[in-house]
Amino acid sequence: MAQRRLVVIGGDAAGMSAASRARRLKDPGQLTITAFERGRFASYSACGIPYWAGGVVDGPDALIARTPEAHRERGIDLRMRTEVTDIDVAGQRVRARDLASGREAWHGFDDLVVATGARPVRPPLEGIDAPGVYGVQTLDDGQALLDGLRQAPGRRAVVIGAGYIGVEMAEALRRREYEVTVLERSAQPMSTLDPDMGALVREAMSGMGIDVVTDTAVTGIRTGRDGRVAAVATDDREFPADVVVLGLGVRPETGLAEAAGLPLGESGGLLTDLAMRVRGHDNIWAGGDCVEVLDLVSGRTRHVALGTHANKHGQVIGTNVGGGYATFPGVVGTAVSKVCDLEIARTGLLEAQATAMGLRFVTATIESTSRAGYYPQARPMTVKMLAERGTGRLLGVQIVGREGAAKRVDVAAVALTARMTVDQMTALDLGYAPPFSPVWDPVLVAARKASATVAEG
Amino acid sequence: MAQRRLVVIGGDAAGMSAASRARRLKDPGQLTITAFERGRFASYSACGIPYWAGGVVDGPDALIARTPEAHRERGIDLRMRTEVTDIDVAGQRVRARDLASGREAWHGFDDLVVATGARPVRPPLEGIDAPGVYGVQTLDDGQALLDGLRQAPGRRAVVIGAGYIGVEMAEALRRREYEVTVLERSAQPMSTLDPDMGALVREAMSGMGIDVVTDTAVTGIRTGRDGRVAAVATDDREFPADVVVLGLGVRPETGLAEAAGLPLGESGGLLTDLAMRVRGHDNIWAGGDCVEVLDLVSGRTRHVALGTHANKHGQVIGTNVGGGYATFPGVVGTAVSKVCDLEIARTGLLEAQATAMGLRFVTATIESTSRAGYYPQARPMTVKMLAERGTGRLLGVQIVGREGAAKRVDVAAVALTARMTVDQMTALDLGYAPPFSPVWDPVLVAARKASATVAEG
Repeated sequence: MAQRRLVVIGGDAAGMSAASRARRLKDPGQLTITAFERGRFASYSACGIPYWAGGVVDGPDALIARTPEAHRERGIDLRMRTEVTDIDVAGQRVRARDLASGREAWHGFDDLVVATGARPVRPPLEGIDAPGVYGVQTLDDGQALLDGLRQAPGRRAVVIGAGYIGVEMAEALRRREYEVTVLERSAQPMSTLDPDMGALVREAMSGMGIDVVTDTAVTGIRTGRDGRVAAVATDDREFPADVVVLGLGVRPETGLAEAAGLPLGESGGLLTDLAMRVRGHDNIWAGGDCVEVLDLVSGRTRHVALGTHANKHGQVIGTNVGGGYATFPGVVGTAVSKVCDLEIARTGLLEAQATAMGLRFVTATIESTSRAGYYPQARPMTVKMLAERGTGRLLGVQIVGREGAAKRVDVAAVALTARMTVDQMTALDLGYAPPFSPVWDPVLVAARKASATVAEG
Repeated sequence: MAQRRLVVIGGDAAGMSAASRARRLKDPGQLTITAFERGRFASYSACGIPYWAGGVVDGPDALIARTPEAHRERGIDLRMRTEVTDIDVAGQRVRARDLASGREAWHGFDDLVVATGARPVRPPLEGIDAPGVYGVQTLDDGQALLDGLRQAPGRRAVVIGAGYIGVEMAEALRRREYEVTVLERSAQPMSTLDPDMGALVREAMSGMGIDVVTDTAVTGIRTGRDGRVAAVATDDREFPADVVVLGLGVRPETGLAEAAGLPLGESGGLLTDLAMRVRGHDNIWAGGDCVEVLDLVSGRTRHVALGTHANKHGQVIGTNVGGGYATFPGVVGTAVSKVCDLEIARTGLLEAQATAMGLRFVTATIESTSRAGYYPQARPMTVKMLAERGTGRLLGVQIVGREGAAKRVDVAAVALTARMTVDQMTALDLGYAPPFSPVWDPVLVAARKASATVAEG
């Protein structure tokens, strides 16, 4: 059999997982693998950047799962600082530019993996590109931020956006002893939660000395005489800032794919089949932060940028390219994050999302503790559960608490995958011992209340 | 409608949950509720006793969920220190003895709840009843142990049996600065785990300065001149002991039920239907540590003494007696425990149990960490997974690790309930962020390995 050529665009989680998995299944005599990465780093944990920024972990080396040299030793021709500028679908080739020399060349492929990731949202505001304004998406971004912090003239930080990157960065900057203000357009931080649960996050953040300003639209970035950021302007006031961090979320980085005519969904992410093959293209695959995935609860595709999904996508793509068979069935929308000792988790649908899907539902919110109430360090948590009216099917869970809160959402994630009802959940045989749970696990308490509410009609 | 009479035998988790739930559904004009408890305490957390013994929590008050007075105020006639000595099934009455006065009386019932709990296994050995030998099942036992510790002449403790009560008591006695020896008949501690996983527990316990002696049968308890325990004798040696704790597990306390002709299973536990009605008896219910429950993985009934199940049973019984409808579908065999900072968890079937069921299976054992490897306090854990050959259906999971290990078993408990395959589990959307999990959660790593092993045939 002829030697086939695999080309990978993007050297982070999805791309390099795909390349590594394909390499394990096919030796270099059967398959050549070339991967292009425009940055200085490959195979790293972008999710670790806020902890690097906060000095909790060392970086950037600790965040790198496998060095470019290690990939090359395993027979993957990884070209760093090399940007793919064109995908010629019909011609089965990509054009890549070496960023140092500016040299460009075409590379033919039999299989192509598009793993171009995501880019931080950067609103088109005056001053947004000023020195002292940082995105936090790549290790290069992280390095730029850390270098910038060393040069910052003062210790006032403004984080724009109170999504999970925003709150994680708020923690990081608090650890660096910055005065931190977080500006959020919505009524509450963490718009990945319902507003009533977001309010709990706000309260906790305020208790940590983080100034959370909501219902506020940023109108511009003011710069000083030196051209550096000086303040963030909103509708009605200015927030002095020595450092500004953008925590407005990310969008799929699919300009290249769009130019090549590959199909994009509503959020701009690539659309694939369950084997992670780009729809309508037998030999083009896509995974990671640049794709939309099937949401198993809503039945629609959506964009979820998370390293854990990217790794799974890469595994699936690599298996398929390597001659095996694997699929990625979809997500249920699980996310966990923390800000200082506050743990925040969600899975499934929010109220607004369920309503938008045409679903009728009940909600149940309960308070419980992470351990038996009498056990030391039992910490409070609030669990909110959504269940469909009539059927009682679980639709979503949100948890805000302290130590021991966040990972309890996994129970709901599995229950959502199995399409359980909240009544079925009340009988779940979850691990119980006083150091680990009250005799009724908080998730079960929420399920009982939701089940009773469903029964009332 | 005539006033009905509910009689409850046993005032702990199952009995008082049933009584409380029935009371919420029916007022005293509709239903009288009389509950008999032979001990000095009711509605308590027996699971908390090892932590009370270790001085981690205060006792006994902190372990009492609701006092007898509080029950009485809610319209439950709870009679303490009153032992039921006879169940007259045909006559629909029980005979109860006031232990203080010795007075006996018959009490008629329309519905009866048998919630007589379990008793610690006490092998018929010479000296087993000597002062200084303690079981750990009731709060009365716990109080006797604590009183005994204050009188113990020295600080050498021997725990007989290395099941979960045994290892928890080993921790408690270490906290009290005893020299602790644990004697176990099997080859490894924690026979609720496979031996290879039990070996990890043994290694960790040894590292905590607990002497674990396995493959050892206790032949007798030696007493000193004062009649107190002096040593524990085995086949080949004697272990000096100032205190001996029995950690040999428990058996259903069903002598009363057996004498009344109620149906018992192989382990001596009462057999019920899914509504927790004693089989063949329309108006007799049973729950908690005195019943056998359906194991959803093996399809057989077995005895599982756990407070969390007892509470669920009580809830189901109380709902049914109160005119509602509820069932307890069964268990999957989840248990979590800790000894010092070691966390131990299991769910589903062990290798020996699966083999006994006629199942053919593969196993996969992996090592991972509780958080991203680069995140502070990432602690190691070992996860073992059993999956059925051919179908790939999950059969069981065992976890031994440190902080963040035990409650991960809940994911497997839900997956077992939903009869998922290990291949389906590889795609589970579990919460990921560096403080909470590596990018592949340890349970997913195990599922991947198990799935690959199933695929190899």
